[in-house]
Amino acid sequence: MRKERPLILISNDDGVWAKGINELVRFIRHLGEIVVMAPDSPRSGSGCALTVVSPVTYRMVKKEEGVTIYQCSGTPTDCVKLALHTILDRKPDLVIGGINHGDNSAVNVHYSGTIGIVIEGCLRGIPSIGFSLCDHRAETDFQPAALFIAQITEKVLTAGLPSGVCLNVNIPVVPAYKGIKATTQAKGYWDCEWEPCPRSNGDPYFWLTGRFVEREPDTDTTDYRALQEGYITVTPITVDLTAYGFVEQLQKMLS
Amino acid sequence: MRKERPLILISNDDGVWAKGINELVRFIRHLGEIVVMAPDSPRSGSGCALTVVSPVTYRMVKKEEGVTIYQCSGTPTDCVKLALHTILDRKPDLVIGGINHGDNSAVNVHYSGTIGIVIEGCLRGIPSIGFSLCDHRAETDFQPAALFIAQITEKVLTAGLPSGVCLNVNIPVVPAYKGIKATTQAKGYWDCEWEPCPRSNGDPYFWLTGRFVEREPDTDTTDYRALQEGYITVTPITVDLTAYGFVEQLQKMLS
Repeated sequence: MRKERPLILISNDDGVWAKGINELVRFIRHLGEIVVMAPDSPRSGSGCALTVVSPVTYRMVKKEEGVTIYQCSGTPTDCVKLALHTILDRKPDLVIGGINHGDNSAVNVHYSGTIGIVIEGCLRGIPSIGFSLCDHRAETDFQPAALFIAQITEKVLTAGLPSGVCLNVNIPVVPAYKGIKATTQAKGYWDCEWEPCPRSNGDPYFWLTGRFVEREPDTDTTDYRALQEGYITVTPITVDLTAYGFVEQLQKMLS
Repeated sequence: MRKERPLILISNDDGVWAKGINELVRFIRHLGEIVVMAPDSPRSGSGCALTVVSPVTYRMVKKEEGVTIYQCSGTPTDCVKLALHTILDRKPDLVIGGINHGDNSAVNVHYSGTIGIVIEGCLRGIPSIGFSLCDHRAETDFQPAALFIAQITEKVLTAGLPSGVCLNVNIPVVPAYKGIKATTQAKGYWDCEWEPCPRSNGDPYFWLTGRFVEREPDTDTTDYRALQEGYITVTPITVDLTAYGFVEQLQKMLS
């Protein structure tokens, strides 16, 4: 009896035509049957956003041996939900977001459509990984990360992940990687975030921009720090946001 | 020397004209100086989404004693970021999202623009609370919750919150509240999520819908369960998503 090949669902937030997602398919297609459902246009900064005020549609754009690619009018999270509902005839063995053009370490995890994909897969009980390269340029070179991405993917396919936990993998742009590190989410926030975008009608317009401000920079386990040192970082993230350590004290505060 | 009144920044995801946000202002305006910066149209399901592909603008729509209201073209998270950058001359003492028209308990926390607001405030080091009423109708009655909302707001203004922790408050629609409970985020996912939206051009269109499937329904500490029993629930949530319990094992798995 032949065992079915693993089924891998892929999406991203840079859009179906981005280099990163197509390179990802190339790097891991030997590991299973690939279905891509990705946004028809760039959707960076989508977080876990859903499309509520309009209907969502999709269509197939390419089908070849072991790889089928769809584009979708919705957000990255919509893509995962819609693929699970309308395209796939069985539960995927893995959901992958990426490869993102840009860093999703530290607090970026909250704004990232790549992580939105991963959180959605994880909520559905599917092992899920987000891959991000710390370079947002359209033509950046993903090739140096190819082997590491295939290795991490294969390990998760084999070993699975704990219930409610998914992986946020970030890859630095360096001459040679120092190694792979399990890390924690760096604390901080974005500052100086708005760049004026003058318009002759006089209304104030702004482009989102900013610089990351690290809190607790002495913590040496963080993704932000390890990336700066040249490591590929793998931060395990939980979809249960409960601050368990504060529940009891909160009950007293409310009484 | 007169102490400054607390400064409270409010936003929502139902839009600046929604009943819920205007009722919130009415319920808590005696507690401080209120600045509202809210989306100019409904933005439900925004999560922590940002506006990246276009510039964002805002304008004042109302100013009266102690309350100033702005509308913004961006997402709920943009609203908080933009208010902090362009409107406020000091750091607010509190950021509040809501009152949302609809339930943000359980895994809804990931998709909720209301919680996006709260996470943004928390990342900036400001005590932050999201209020949601479990009824999405435009004309629903928020009045029964007025006193509780003012009390919780006042307690957080006085006592603050631990660093990196914010509050997700959900209010059931019941003849009488059983009380207020500190709860945990119920585990689960949304299923049966797409409703066909036929169109004569033949492409498949879908509206987002769905029903919540609870995992581990025997856990009696959850927000989902307590809401069904008639309690107002307060779930403390953390902005640090690291799954700390898995970091060490992950490092072994990667080696």
